[in-house]
Amino acid sequence: MRRFVADKTRNLVRRASTCSPTCPVSPRPHHPPSLLSQPTSPPFSSSSPSHPSSITSPLRFLTAAALHPLSFPASPNSMASNYSTTPVTLQSVNPKVLKCEYAVRGEIVTLAQKLEQDLKQNPDSHPFDEIIYCNIGNPQSLGQQPITFFREVLALCDHPAILDRSETQGLFSADAIERAFQILDQIPGRATGAYSHSQGIKGLRETIAAGIAERDGFPADPNDIFLTDGASPAVHMMMQLLIRSEKDGILCPIPQYPLYSASIALHGGTLVPYYLDEATGWGLEISELKKQLETAKSNGVCVRALVVINPGNPTGQVLAEDNQCEIVEFCKNEGLVLLADEVYQENIYVPDKQFHSFKKVSRSMGYGEKNISLVSFQSVSKGYYGECGKRGGYMEVTGFSPEIREQIYKVASVNLCSNISGQILASLVMNPPKVGDESYESYTGEKDGILSSLAKRAKTLEDALNSLEGVTCNRAEGAMYLFPRIDLPHKAIKAAEAAKTAPDAFYARRLLDATGVVVVPGSGFGQVPGTWHFRCTILPQEDKIPAIVSRLTEFHKKFMDEFRD
Amino acid sequence: MRRFVADKTRNLVRRASTCSPTCPVSPRPHHPPSLLSQPTSPPFSSSSPSHPSSITSPLRFLTAAALHPLSFPASPNSMASNYSTTPVTLQSVNPKVLKCEYAVRGEIVTLAQKLEQDLKQNPDSHPFDEIIYCNIGNPQSLGQQPITFFREVLALCDHPAILDRSETQGLFSADAIERAFQILDQIPGRATGAYSHSQGIKGLRETIAAGIAERDGFPADPNDIFLTDGASPAVHMMMQLLIRSEKDGILCPIPQYPLYSASIALHGGTLVPYYLDEATGWGLEISELKKQLETAKSNGVCVRALVVINPGNPTGQVLAEDNQCEIVEFCKNEGLVLLADEVYQENIYVPDKQFHSFKKVSRSMGYGEKNISLVSFQSVSKGYYGECGKRGGYMEVTGFSPEIREQIYKVASVNLCSNISGQILASLVMNPPKVGDESYESYTGEKDGILSSLAKRAKTLEDALNSLEGVTCNRAEGAMYLFPRIDLPHKAIKAAEAAKTAPDAFYARRLLDATGVVVVPGSGFGQVPGTWHFRCTILPQEDKIPAIVSRLTEFHKKFMDEFRD
Repeated sequence: MRRFVADKTRNLVRRASTCSPTCPVSPRPHHPPSLLSQPTSPPFSSSSPSHPSSITSPLRFLTAAALHPLSFPASPNSMASNYSTTPVTLQSVNPKVLKCEYAVRGEIVTLAQKLEQDLKQNPDSHPFDEIIYCNIGNPQSLGQQPITFFREVLALCDHPAILDRSETQGLFSADAIERAFQILDQIPGRATGAYSHSQGIKGLRETIAAGIAERDGFPADPNDIFLTDGASPAVHMMMQLLIRSEKDGILCPIPQYPLYSASIALHGGTLVPYYLDEATGWGLEISELKKQLETAKSNGVCVRALVVINPGNPTGQVLAEDNQCEIVEFCKNEGLVLLADEVYQENIYVPDKQFHSFKKVSRSMGYGEKNISLVSFQSVSKGYYGECGKRGGYMEVTGFSPEIREQIYKVASVNLCSNISGQILASLVMNPPKVGDESYESYTGEKDGILSSLAKRAKTLEDALNSLEGVTCNRAEGAMYLFPRIDLPHKAIKAAEAAKTAPDAFYARRLLDATGVVVVPGSGFGQVPGTWHFRCTILPQEDKIPAIVSRLTEFHKKFMDEFRD
Repeated sequence: MRRFVADKTRNLVRRASTCSPTCPVSPRPHHPPSLLSQPTSPPFSSSSPSHPSSITSPLRFLTAAALHPLSFPASPNSMASNYSTTPVTLQSVNPKVLKCEYAVRGEIVTLAQKLEQDLKQNPDSHPFDEIIYCNIGNPQSLGQQPITFFREVLALCDHPAILDRSETQGLFSADAIERAFQILDQIPGRATGAYSHSQGIKGLRETIAAGIAERDGFPADPNDIFLTDGASPAVHMMMQLLIRSEKDGILCPIPQYPLYSASIALHGGTLVPYYLDEATGWGLEISELKKQLETAKSNGVCVRALVVINPGNPTGQVLAEDNQCEIVEFCKNEGLVLLADEVYQENIYVPDKQFHSFKKVSRSMGYGEKNISLVSFQSVSKGYYGECGKRGGYMEVTGFSPEIREQIYKVASVNLCSNISGQILASLVMNPPKVGDESYESYTGEKDGILSSLAKRAKTLEDALNSLEGVTCNRAEGAMYLFPRIDLPHKAIKAAEAAKTAPDAFYARRLLDATGVVVVPGSGFGQVPGTWHFRCTILPQEDKIPAIVSRLTEFHKKFMDEFRD
């Protein structure tokens, strides 16, 4: 049935330009297709090791999932046919929306939510007592506690009336109170409930710029900072700026974080894949970038930008500095905007690797504002703080002319500003307590505790995965994920085909049904054809890890016994 | 110079499809243009009273403004020529971005910020001692205080660690503490720092749905609620869903809130204008809707939706219930989605008018989920709370098939969720303290004080404006704005033409230079050709109003004396 729906959807994507009967038909111009939509067309069919089928699994299977009744948020029993008189249909909806997919909250998660409901109604309804969400980098949903100092400051800025009250001294640390005063002084009229400047509150941007300068050893300009509701809107803003049609391409890593494929699809562009080399710990080869760029060009695609995710998501590698120099050189020579996803810059777990921002690397190479167009994305959702729900973040925009900066500013101004709590939090993570501050010890204790525990969890899960038959897993040098490769038996692949699902989605579904552990199939991120993976976060609390390991090990053994050729 | 830049920009918009030298050229298909881009083409040239010139003033003059050095957020002295080697240029940027304009933060505001800097450096640099921003509905930036109860709850949810502390009893009201506990219990793991469900926290959506049901007397479904970072992202989401190409049109009021023209431009659609009748207090005539719909259809535009702003922005009228019934009937018969901007639902200032949601009106008419596609937008930025900086809001989506709802959910999920503080605040404004709660008296005192003061300010400013030579101003029945019409002398219009600016922009600029009062020219909202207006908020605190009135009166008299024919 799902295959049927998937096929139906692909047809709809092609037919979607027809309008309602009362309206004229507007035929869609034929353009090179976006990677995740019409895979068999150039530029990708000719680009080895790229073979469309693997990249398109998200559409083939997750679109099917998207139409699966279970994934419908509203009353699941309502039938589409009852809506025959309503004006918007799958035939008349924007086809770019149909094309867009986001696996991190795809079919498996919807099924998990369903199982969670079952457990609430009947704790014995499944062979596990809880669902463990390893599908998304959402630390506090799995019990990670927020950094006390940050929350103290946020609370005081939300209710400044208590700042002068004596009880407040007993409830909040002195430096939190002082910081709240400082921040309020930076906000015109101390109005934390007012729209700010479209780029964010100037004083907070100055704090962030100072933090960047301290991190990199190179100056940063507050006017280059655009504060956003998390990193996602910033990525959308840049895609909106760059993508004019399906003839515009964005180079993205495969595997990639599906925000990029989704955003490119929504803005009607073409995702140009470059493959990370799993054999060398998800290495980024310039030769691969060049090859894919040439293939895209030869297929009439105008490549506008290169997306680099460092530390990697879902792959967890941390780029070496000399590799970053090559990437900067490549972008400069090829006239590409470098879109640097650096939201995991605080998440480094191995002593032999270190985070270097692309801004620092380019400046170290002697390239300045006029030489390289570089956008760095940062978020309060990741790092050791993991404040996903606060939707804070920023992009640092360098190397764009005044006219283009003006256009970015204009787009930002249409939505007025990002939320002020998120803006404040972004300034706090870039300027945490310093030695001598009252909160310094508790702050460093909380921070180091979280980061060292994440490193431990990463290693434990990595070792456990590598001990499984047919599973190989690169180490998580950084970020929050492991992306193990599963050498699935031929029988399992056949069974998946029979079930009209991707082999890795089949495995993930079986894993969920047996253990309650939620992971995302590799097909949601893209992978080399014929290889199968899943993404698993390292975020469950330490006391849960042994259970996860034993459940996973037991499940995998049974799975392999069932399908071993 | 500005005219030159404006012309240059218009040409760029047309030429913008050319790619960088290394890339192939992708010619843009010829489509009916969006209203604010290529005015002289159908469907609008033929639609009286629509005449392109007035509607296009935003592009003609504000695009010029957008390229004005003053409006460049980053180092104003840097020259574009220095960026000759960077890849993104006005020729290669997405032309939809070039087309988009947002007058509320346009040229006049940029100039005001410049004057504010002057005053900081030298208090005597201008004939006034402060800039008064009447350009934007941003109450707390002008001294409006937040509702205490709301801020208490937000602070406690930001830092739940203090909930059990004894000092907290002395600092916070008992019902705020209780409400914080209730809300935390609705959040999985009490994690206010975790991503929520893509539509928002289920428990908060239940609270909001209950509030809607209480308001309307008709049931509301939590699954119909999508919590968003203010109303703007919700509007973008619906435009993204509906607009496939420039052949898709959205009926918008003229005058309109420029979020709609900007969003339609960014999504590449066509704004189909319908004119509000100033003579009947900005009345909405069904005959005008029909005429504009037919004109658009005859020009090959597929009209997908009707935008209604009630209470009106910038026009301040409150629709009568029978008028709303006609509008619902029109949308149902014509197969249009009704996009109801109801963010000012709490802002009613006249005893003879009352707010009725379009949901209530359609249900009262007997139209249910399957009969009418209706989206209602609400925001925490307006009302008596005016919490613009919190970026909270929601849309209630009814009358869409499960498949389409699934697509909306998918788009929402790409950005994961809206900020949790904004979500909490949205639940608070839809469920404020009740009789018997400890905060009830202070809450009603603060609320009534703000609303009655706004009504007073509206009346005072309305009377003052109507007392000016050649100025007529409809009353602000609701919302936060007055939109007076200025009958400008011929000489003033000539002077504006000589200054290469719109006559109302010329007036607003003169007003700013003379008084420090910032208003938005009517050309930023659209107006009947040959008429000139400006939008002025009613938000300055009461003690400032007399000064504003006298400054405005004195300026206007001098202006008329200078230009009287």
